[in-house]
Amino acid sequence: MAVPLPAKALGGAEPAGHRWLPRLPVLDWGRGYDRETFVSDLLAALIVTIMLIPQSLAYALLAGLPPEVGLYASVAPLMLYAIFGSSRALAVGPVAVVSLMTAAAIGEHAVVGSPAYWSAAMTIAFLSGVMLLAMGMLHLGFLANFLSHPVISGFISASGLLIAASQLKTLMGVKAEGDHLVDLLVASSRQVQHTHVLTLGVGVSATAFLFWVRTGLKPLLLRSGMPAKAADVAAKAGPVAVIAVTTCLAWALGWQAQGLKIVGVIPRGLPPLTMPSWDLTLWSELALPALLISLVGFVESVSVGQTLAAKRRQRIEPDQELVALGFSNLSAAFTGGLPVTGGFARSVVNFDAGAQTPAAGVFTAVGITLASLLLTPALYYLPQATLSATIIVAVLSLVDLGILKRTWAYSKADFAAVAATWLATLGLGVESGLVVGVGVSLALYLYRTSRPHIALVGLVPGTEYFRNVQRHEVLVSPRLVTLRVDESLYFANARALEDRVNEAVAGHPELRHLVLQCSAINDIDASALESLEAIEHRLSGAGITLHLSEVKGPLMDRLKTTALVRHLNGRIFLTQYQAVAALTPELLQERLVLPAPARHSTAQSA
Amino acid sequence: MAVPLPAKALGGAEPAGHRWLPRLPVLDWGRGYDRETFVSDLLAALIVTIMLIPQSLAYALLAGLPPEVGLYASVAPLMLYAIFGSSRALAVGPVAVVSLMTAAAIGEHAVVGSPAYWSAAMTIAFLSGVMLLAMGMLHLGFLANFLSHPVISGFISASGLLIAASQLKTLMGVKAEGDHLVDLLVASSRQVQHTHVLTLGVGVSATAFLFWVRTGLKPLLLRSGMPAKAADVAAKAGPVAVIAVTTCLAWALGWQAQGLKIVGVIPRGLPPLTMPSWDLTLWSELALPALLISLVGFVESVSVGQTLAAKRRQRIEPDQELVALGFSNLSAAFTGGLPVTGGFARSVVNFDAGAQTPAAGVFTAVGITLASLLLTPALYYLPQATLSATIIVAVLSLVDLGILKRTWAYSKADFAAVAATWLATLGLGVESGLVVGVGVSLALYLYRTSRPHIALVGLVPGTEYFRNVQRHEVLVSPRLVTLRVDESLYFANARALEDRVNEAVAGHPELRHLVLQCSAINDIDASALESLEAIEHRLSGAGITLHLSEVKGPLMDRLKTTALVRHLNGRIFLTQYQAVAALTPELLQERLVLPAPARHSTAQSA
Repeated sequence: MAVPLPAKALGGAEPAGHRWLPRLPVLDWGRGYDRETFVSDLLAALIVTIMLIPQSLAYALLAGLPPEVGLYASVAPLMLYAIFGSSRALAVGPVAVVSLMTAAAIGEHAVVGSPAYWSAAMTIAFLSGVMLLAMGMLHLGFLANFLSHPVISGFISASGLLIAASQLKTLMGVKAEGDHLVDLLVASSRQVQHTHVLTLGVGVSATAFLFWVRTGLKPLLLRSGMPAKAADVAAKAGPVAVIAVTTCLAWALGWQAQGLKIVGVIPRGLPPLTMPSWDLTLWSELALPALLISLVGFVESVSVGQTLAAKRRQRIEPDQELVALGFSNLSAAFTGGLPVTGGFARSVVNFDAGAQTPAAGVFTAVGITLASLLLTPALYYLPQATLSATIIVAVLSLVDLGILKRTWAYSKADFAAVAATWLATLGLGVESGLVVGVGVSLALYLYRTSRPHIALVGLVPGTEYFRNVQRHEVLVSPRLVTLRVDESLYFANARALEDRVNEAVAGHPELRHLVLQCSAINDIDASALESLEAIEHRLSGAGITLHLSEVKGPLMDRLKTTALVRHLNGRIFLTQYQAVAALTPELLQERLVLPAPARHSTAQSA
Repeated sequence: MAVPLPAKALGGAEPAGHRWLPRLPVLDWGRGYDRETFVSDLLAALIVTIMLIPQSLAYALLAGLPPEVGLYASVAPLMLYAIFGSSRALAVGPVAVVSLMTAAAIGEHAVVGSPAYWSAAMTIAFLSGVMLLAMGMLHLGFLANFLSHPVISGFISASGLLIAASQLKTLMGVKAEGDHLVDLLVASSRQVQHTHVLTLGVGVSATAFLFWVRTGLKPLLLRSGMPAKAADVAAKAGPVAVIAVTTCLAWALGWQAQGLKIVGVIPRGLPPLTMPSWDLTLWSELALPALLISLVGFVESVSVGQTLAAKRRQRIEPDQELVALGFSNLSAAFTGGLPVTGGFARSVVNFDAGAQTPAAGVFTAVGITLASLLLTPALYYLPQATLSATIIVAVLSLVDLGILKRTWAYSKADFAAVAATWLATLGLGVESGLVVGVGVSLALYLYRTSRPHIALVGLVPGTEYFRNVQRHEVLVSPRLVTLRVDESLYFANARALEDRVNEAVAGHPELRHLVLQCSAINDIDASALESLEAIEHRLSGAGITLHLSEVKGPLMDRLKTTALVRHLNGRIFLTQYQAVAALTPELLQERLVLPAPARHSTAQSA
């Protein structure tokens, strides 16, 4: 269903103009809403609701909050997203990584289970909402781009391991706390002798069953003749089945009396109206975690949204997504929730189940509300170990070890960024992990661009092409040196160009012309411009003329007004071939191909 | 005099191999040293010595140190530089900006005039020497590249103003301290009523005379028939004349008794053997200032060295310069000196006076030693206000207001970097100024590269060229979209490409092919590669084939092994024209030129 886009979304490379008022995508899709779409959305909402109930409870527990907080955070945020969001299928709510980051951030400021702890969670949601909204209004969505794929991938994988490790204690039925992987593993292993065998049995069975459902159930059902669609639904119902079965067993067999921890009373009712804390000291302490949570949530949400939108040739607007996630988090803060974002698994389920518009999110919110009003007593006997099992299976599917291998093969710099993020997240915690990852990837990028590839090129005989003298047999003249610069020039690499020019010129008394072939230069900043002026000045002091060739149009427009071009002794050639034809025509007559090293070594004569 | 360079200095763009032992350039030039070179060097050394004596005293006072420290710092460092330096004409010693930075750094840790203060100065020289040496050995000279021209220029100009403001008190004969421009001006203006009129008279007259010498004397001498060379020397002797005249007047008229501050006793003798502090706490406090001093000194020194070397078709090796400046600073630390670097004015004088080799530096060191042994009693009556006048005139010549105008015209981002550096240096002090400048320029660079120029291109009718549809009348097909990406792809701009592709595809049901023209892409990192894979995946999900064209050789070598290229549904075309010929041959038949906006607006049909 391709939907007409507003004209401004089409055309130029520039981002949408500077609107200060948020758009309301609901007006676009709401207008054409019909019965058919309604049925599709309702069906998708039903499936997502069933999936979301255990997930919401589990992610609230993961954040150290009462289970009902997860349900609260799956009502108002979905409705707000439906109004402001530009994705048609994204499902927002509590997600594993953001819950972990929330727990890490507020764990330092309040005791788990205290009212201050819950209030701090709402405050993070509030701050995160304000930040997302501000970034959206100011078109700062590009900030999230600085979380590179390797860093995000390494971060989410490492966080997944951390989360799984943090669930060991629930699976074992013991107490063990820690912020880092080693802490968690050591703390859990110290408690091995106190392991509650029944709890462990329930937890391990549930985990094993859920893993089997993921990998083994669907092929089995298909082999037994079930239609693919039905097999798919059955496989997705696995978690619900585990919850139903273990809850019934816990009730029937009186497991609570044997020491198994159950979820217990979940208060029935609508999400409460709440207030985040207005304590400015707390705000300043939570500001950095809230920013990191906002960025991670935004990146995760946008990549899911883009993937789903593209499947139907729709598109999402990143700045609008910021606004929508901002309102979602604000609403979570005022309705007793925790930070939320667009989740991968639930959005894919929503999409596959046929959701056509964000109205599906509204229906899901209604479903969750009904569940919190009617269904919570049925969850009284739900074993906590079962929820841990669902968390473990969900997060371990996020762990991608392959990225280490893939980046190692493709780019050592990217590998270094992934590895640094992994190690810092596991060893120092989630916030440090992200900061280290971003720092390392930026440093490596700057390092790379500061050492541009600059090739000494010569004419391929009988053609108009120029190639690197070190790779090809080409013609060069002792009177002319051509350097092809394979990078935009800016302050960090301008001096490298100066060095390279000096190197190419030093000890060549017969040299008269130096041509910079600019075909790969997209921009020249003021530093590089000064370097070029310095190069021109030094060369002309040495009796050598600087020329440029193949300067791009937009760059030439800017260079025209500069002292460099106005006072350039040399010329600016449209093509490198024209440069050689004008400066060393004798080279074009030459038919003798000298091997590059031999020609090049003429450089050694003083 | 072109000198044969070692073979490794020529050829490829790669930096010199990983040597761990410093080279000794003295062996290169020392071998051919002859009588003629000796005479040239000796003459240059004589002129530089005369110039250096007052400068050394003045810059030591500027750093808050006894005047003789400046002389000490002009002996051993020159000799060490002569052995290790790769520039033939660079003259090292105390320079204004580095002295100011030294004073700012140690002023927080010791009282001016105390032994601890002097010891801290030597410690900074020591730390700076170790850092420079380490950077040279590890080939980390590129770090200095992150001080962009606008930042360095803004920093040096603002520092010049700070230094001039700090000299007001000496000119007025009052006490006034401060770290920032406002502090300094307020403190000085509060003391106006205590101004010592004789001191002010001497200071202002000396300053006015020196400005006149710079601008008015040489033309006057030339008009009066003096040969150009002699007029030049006479103009440069101005500072010496001012010093001689005011010293004689102070002695003859008994100005000291009238309250004029004089330099007083400068101890006679060779530079002492000293030890920097080994206090690790002090080291950790001085580490950042020492790093900034090292980088600023290195950048200043290398740019002077490169300019002079290029005039004789020589070149300097930045890593070797780091080693040489490292040894120079270490020697300053052990001979009672302060941090040193290659100075602009003195190096130019040295070069113009005919210095052929670093031996001139050795002779200058001998000259300064003789001066400290024999001449210091003659400087007893030298008024401090005269030295302040020489400092003011020297540093105000460093102030370059033009860069504000030039960068404003050429690049707003560079203007912002200069302005931020200016404001932060004047308002927050030298260290903050540098850190803010580097931070702003990096942030702006990253911002720019994160929003790459991506043009929708079409075929110029009757040619094989492709141009931006927004700038030219070109042919496009509703079945094919070509995007030309004008930037290397990396994590910060990969998502911008995804957005742009989504935008170009959304609402075009007739679209079948998308070509990325890669002629300006020099590199693709792992994030961007994943983005391309995601784009390919999304496009193929929507029935559109992704193709690439004009991929560069080195990039293609790396892409060959990736999943993207191995599983690409589309093709990789050598030229964009071949792509169009293969995918939409009907376009080549078309002779109708439609205005770009009209064609482009077909995008609006859903």
